[in-house]
Amino acid sequence: MSKKFQKLLSQRTLNMQSNAIREILAVVSQPGMISLAGGIPAPQSFPLEDLYRINETVLDRYGAAALQYDLTEGFTPFREALVDYLSAKQVQTSAEDILVFNGSQSVLDTLAKVLITPGDFVALESPSYLGAITAFNAYEPRYVDIETDDEGIIPESLVKLLEKRSVKFIYLVSTFQNPTGRTLSASRRREVAEIVKRFEALVIEDDPYSDLRYRGEPIAPFFTFAPENTVYVSTVSKVFAPGLRLGFCIAPKAIHHWMRIAKQGADLHSNTYAQALATEYIRGGYLDRQLPKIIDLYRPRQEAMLAAMDEFMPKVYRWTKPEGGMFIWIDGPDGLDAEEIYWKAVDQKVAFVPGKYFFIDQKAGLGTMRLNFTMSDESTIVRAIEILARVIGEHSGD
Amino acid sequence: MSKKFQKLLSQRTLNMQSNAIREILAVVSQPGMISLAGGIPAPQSFPLEDLYRINETVLDRYGAAALQYDLTEGFTPFREALVDYLSAKQVQTSAEDILVFNGSQSVLDTLAKVLITPGDFVALESPSYLGAITAFNAYEPRYVDIETDDEGIIPESLVKLLEKRSVKFIYLVSTFQNPTGRTLSASRRREVAEIVKRFEALVIEDDPYSDLRYRGEPIAPFFTFAPENTVYVSTVSKVFAPGLRLGFCIAPKAIHHWMRIAKQGADLHSNTYAQALATEYIRGGYLDRQLPKIIDLYRPRQEAMLAAMDEFMPKVYRWTKPEGGMFIWIDGPDGLDAEEIYWKAVDQKVAFVPGKYFFIDQKAGLGTMRLNFTMSDESTIVRAIEILARVIGEHSGD
Repeated sequence: MSKKFQKLLSQRTLNMQSNAIREILAVVSQPGMISLAGGIPAPQSFPLEDLYRINETVLDRYGAAALQYDLTEGFTPFREALVDYLSAKQVQTSAEDILVFNGSQSVLDTLAKVLITPGDFVALESPSYLGAITAFNAYEPRYVDIETDDEGIIPESLVKLLEKRSVKFIYLVSTFQNPTGRTLSASRRREVAEIVKRFEALVIEDDPYSDLRYRGEPIAPFFTFAPENTVYVSTVSKVFAPGLRLGFCIAPKAIHHWMRIAKQGADLHSNTYAQALATEYIRGGYLDRQLPKIIDLYRPRQEAMLAAMDEFMPKVYRWTKPEGGMFIWIDGPDGLDAEEIYWKAVDQKVAFVPGKYFFIDQKAGLGTMRLNFTMSDESTIVRAIEILARVIGEHSGD
Repeated sequence: MSKKFQKLLSQRTLNMQSNAIREILAVVSQPGMISLAGGIPAPQSFPLEDLYRINETVLDRYGAAALQYDLTEGFTPFREALVDYLSAKQVQTSAEDILVFNGSQSVLDTLAKVLITPGDFVALESPSYLGAITAFNAYEPRYVDIETDDEGIIPESLVKLLEKRSVKFIYLVSTFQNPTGRTLSASRRREVAEIVKRFEALVIEDDPYSDLRYRGEPIAPFFTFAPENTVYVSTVSKVFAPGLRLGFCIAPKAIHHWMRIAKQGADLHSNTYAQALATEYIRGGYLDRQLPKIIDLYRPRQEAMLAAMDEFMPKVYRWTKPEGGMFIWIDGPDGLDAEEIYWKAVDQKVAFVPGKYFFIDQKAGLGTMRLNFTMSDESTIVRAIEILARVIGEHSGD
């Protein structure tokens, strides 16, 4: 890269690293590759036909207001529609408490901007969502890990951490976590809520996946257990369309206030037209009709993946069996470096994400892998798992 | 405000100030107020009827791709359409060199994020665009002023500044500046270009208004005089719709690289659907048909304002007579505090922005005012200027 203007870069930029995961995933777009690496919704999940009608409704109903500058906090009809949508998830709130952003990624960026002074500590699940870490990195925090098991973060690990350190916030993907697919159980939510209240700590609960439930009963968001200590973050990306870039949050008053000020400086407000589309998608009953279709699309894909893994994977491998979401997480035997499997699988035209990239201490996750099941149909998934299992079998025979 | 979680705020947030201009402009939304205070396009300038057709074209042509996650650098067809649009403004570029953001505000935010370490110097025109200052503030720079006259920044003032200080960048609104309406003349562009090349300095040229030309000949953007030392920033907000939040920039390679990385962490990418709408708005010839209509809407408003000022304003007042844009700038006699005029005018139901808010050193702009002419029709504008002139006359008679 050109050296010109390197001297103009900020300290923050000099600390940014190019993304190692991007480099290894560059091969994923090769022709013929079956990718279990992504984390994106299937295009078949989008309500494409409905959008012809929804666009007309938006132009008829809101006219120029859908194209004009608008409030930093978000388009009022959208925030009102979100109140009803959230109420069905047991999240009681009001339009005034909601802030709309450009996807949940920009909620995370703004939270970090408002909360992190370089050197501050942020507590993460181990492993944790990589996109969040990327957002936080620009503000130069240090990270501390919270241990997790199949029920999510382990309360004792959190207590030990909070006794030792003052952290700016604890970041959790509470339901069908990215990357593991795990869900913080209801009893754990209660325990963790008590802990954060006791320590006057702040939790950022990122909840993009809870609507994608294929089995079992919904669990109320962590927010409902500790609303005064939680920033609740979600998005319409998984239930409407990620390309609209609409995320939102509910935050304690002091944080809400500064997030709005910070957002005003950063981008004035989010796309009014996209917010109007999402308003009518929710209000017009389209979401209620579309969500079962999305679930009917993904459930058999996940079932196909889990069945194929039961059939083909070596018995020494363990994996999660989430009731929803987009991912399955594999934990291989001691001594495995899943990146070696990755390159061999890619040779056989199957890609996934080596799990170590989701760990602050990559050594803790050497033997893990993240598999996505939303982007391929059932027969492709079965074929991919069969190939992956064969590669794994051959690798252990090396 | 609640004190809870105040202790969690970052150093950067503790330095943010609530916006004084917002406080005084709170009265603008009172019923019956004629506002010359805003800086927003008239809703009549939006191609509302065309959008029914443009939406259909987008859904037919791009389908699910218009709703899906997309490249951080921007939707490729949009960047390709921008290449043609920019070529008509003498800006020669390629799709690979363009980065798309959520309005030009988020270009400015990202530039500041990538370039400013707290304490760095940023050079501003005096007066300068307030939204830019708000964006930069979050990254804690110090500001230095460049003196200006009717032709824009004064080259000698810039040289003196650059000899004394190393600045991260020089921020210019080169054509029909906000707040003054002034344009950096062609000969000044050449002089300033030579200076920034000599000092290896970086200019951020913000160019939202140059398409709104009502008289005279276009001047090539500053970028064309020093492309290797300029980040060219623009937006479709003034020629299509601000609610879509689409801005973009062309930047030197090293800065382009880090802006893309920073944007990926901040919001992944900008709204795909809005970019597809803007693509078809440009490609389908709608822009070429709409822009003359926008100019036909604004030109008589500006002419009405200038004529009314000639007729009613005290002779000791001076004002700019821009060939385009959205603003006229008034400079009152020595000793005037235009905020006193502001409150008296507001009593008579006319609002504007006291100009001092656009100065780093507010004392330098006490006697100035910014008037917008895009949001009211001609007769309303004439009435407002008549009232304002009367208030001014009575004030000087105090």
